[in-house]
Amino acid sequence: MIRPLPPVVLVLAGHDPTGGAGIIADSEAIAANGGWALTIPTALTVQNCHNVSRVIPADPATMLASAEALADMPVAAIKIGLLADAATLTVAERIVRRFPGVPVVIDPVLKAGGGADLSTPELCRLFVDKLIGHADILTPNRHELARLAPEQADTGDTERAVALLSAGCQSVLVTGTDDPLPASDGGTVTHTLHTPESARQWQWPRLPATYHGSGCTLAAALAARLAAGDTLPEACEQAQHFAWQSLSHGYRPSHGQHLPNRFYHDSHSPVKKRTP
Amino acid sequence: MIRPLPPVVLVLAGHDPTGGAGIIADSEAIAANGGWALTIPTALTVQNCHNVSRVIPADPATMLASAEALADMPVAAIKIGLLADAATLTVAERIVRRFPGVPVVIDPVLKAGGGADLSTPELCRLFVDKLIGHADILTPNRHELARLAPEQADTGDTERAVALLSAGCQSVLVTGTDDPLPASDGGTVTHTLHTPESARQWQWPRLPATYHGSGCTLAAALAARLAAGDTLPEACEQAQHFAWQSLSHGYRPSHGQHLPNRFYHDSHSPVKKRTP
Repeated sequence: MIRPLPPVVLVLAGHDPTGGAGIIADSEAIAANGGWALTIPTALTVQNCHNVSRVIPADPATMLASAEALADMPVAAIKIGLLADAATLTVAERIVRRFPGVPVVIDPVLKAGGGADLSTPELCRLFVDKLIGHADILTPNRHELARLAPEQADTGDTERAVALLSAGCQSVLVTGTDDPLPASDGGTVTHTLHTPESARQWQWPRLPATYHGSGCTLAAALAARLAAGDTLPEACEQAQHFAWQSLSHGYRPSHGQHLPNRFYHDSHSPVKKRTP
Repeated sequence: MIRPLPPVVLVLAGHDPTGGAGIIADSEAIAANGGWALTIPTALTVQNCHNVSRVIPADPATMLASAEALADMPVAAIKIGLLADAATLTVAERIVRRFPGVPVVIDPVLKAGGGADLSTPELCRLFVDKLIGHADILTPNRHELARLAPEQADTGDTERAVALLSAGCQSVLVTGTDDPLPASDGGTVTHTLHTPESARQWQWPRLPATYHGSGCTLAAALAARLAAGDTLPEACEQAQHFAWQSLSHGYRPSHGQHLPNRFYHDSHSPVKKRTP
């Protein structure tokens, strides 16, 4: 019954004690999509289901030593999340360069679900200049897209995505969950995949709550799908399906944002139920 | 389809980038046993499937702030793993005291699977003096049991377990995976639950590999079972069953110790398989 290791995804992201987001969420989404996560924390955070109150960037030397220690693992995709300062961003870029040809998913985590700002205009600029050239796919929401393309302030999402493609990333999946509800259509959420050749859209029923970790869930599932060999559009579709299911089966804590249920398929109970 | 949060387990443990052990392993084992993990890292580590090369204890103030931020979550069990210095041990004890009446599982992580020492005699003494009085159950292997009861060096496991019961913990589950194979019986592993009233044993077929994170898997599953309302003997039995299944379906990386498969029930693939 001994099995080979599933497709390995290297995750560089923050740690969230609630488990809704960050490396715990990423590991869950990757496991649920048939992969194995290796995780290098880029930051610790103090937070709950309301908001983030502190972000402590990791020591870049520890991040690099961790990547070196994992050098014998067969990394098949990389997922990058929160990078809270220039030093961790710089070392993340160095780590990514060690894995040429490996697909890279970058989720620009610029703001917490509860509203706390996790980046600065300078850090956004460094992110665009140094990092997104390594991305096979970038997964901003509309707010993050606007912050990453400030010079396209007077244009639309397509122009902003084109600006990021011009800056070197291979594709941009713009998620629309944070889109303000248009009066005529409050019932759907549109996600758009921009590539140099085309744009493709998916529509999903809008869910009735706000969620902690929806972006991490989507991006990590996407990385696991790419690690398993899916094409980019297939991986996008499967990851959106997985994220939507995880949110729609989500949990309501006593206060704050809902938490995704990334093991909705069996209500979290694989082992034999005990008989009463 | 919105559900209430599953029984919550607060985890204080180290982070292991491989995902075999530490908070990622704990979260997986807790999710797989029907719980929801909140995780406060007590240390970051640099390691792979061979051994641990660095341990960086967490900042105690960050640990405490994290526990405060999570104060509105309905914690139903606590699981404690690696405590790599006196400061993190002391703050872990402070955090546990905030949750009177909540069952506490303490896994004394004194040595890495690959052999690296993660504790000192002084830290072991502090662990016994300050922490184990809060434990509903302590889950040492035979090596850890011997280190925690050095004054019983010339006696047996039962005497050592009794010494720890006298020091204030409610029960001790001594795992026997690290028992040297007796010539007459290389085929089984015996785990023994010591309580002030009795001792109870379980035997499991010995598996043919060494594993990274077996102790974390067992202790976290046990905490999830207690959070869900199992009695202590029931939780011990279910957690052993879960850990044995996770190991027996484990993964073989290219080098080093095998990795537990905590989602063996469905081969890690809940979402609909894509059609070719």
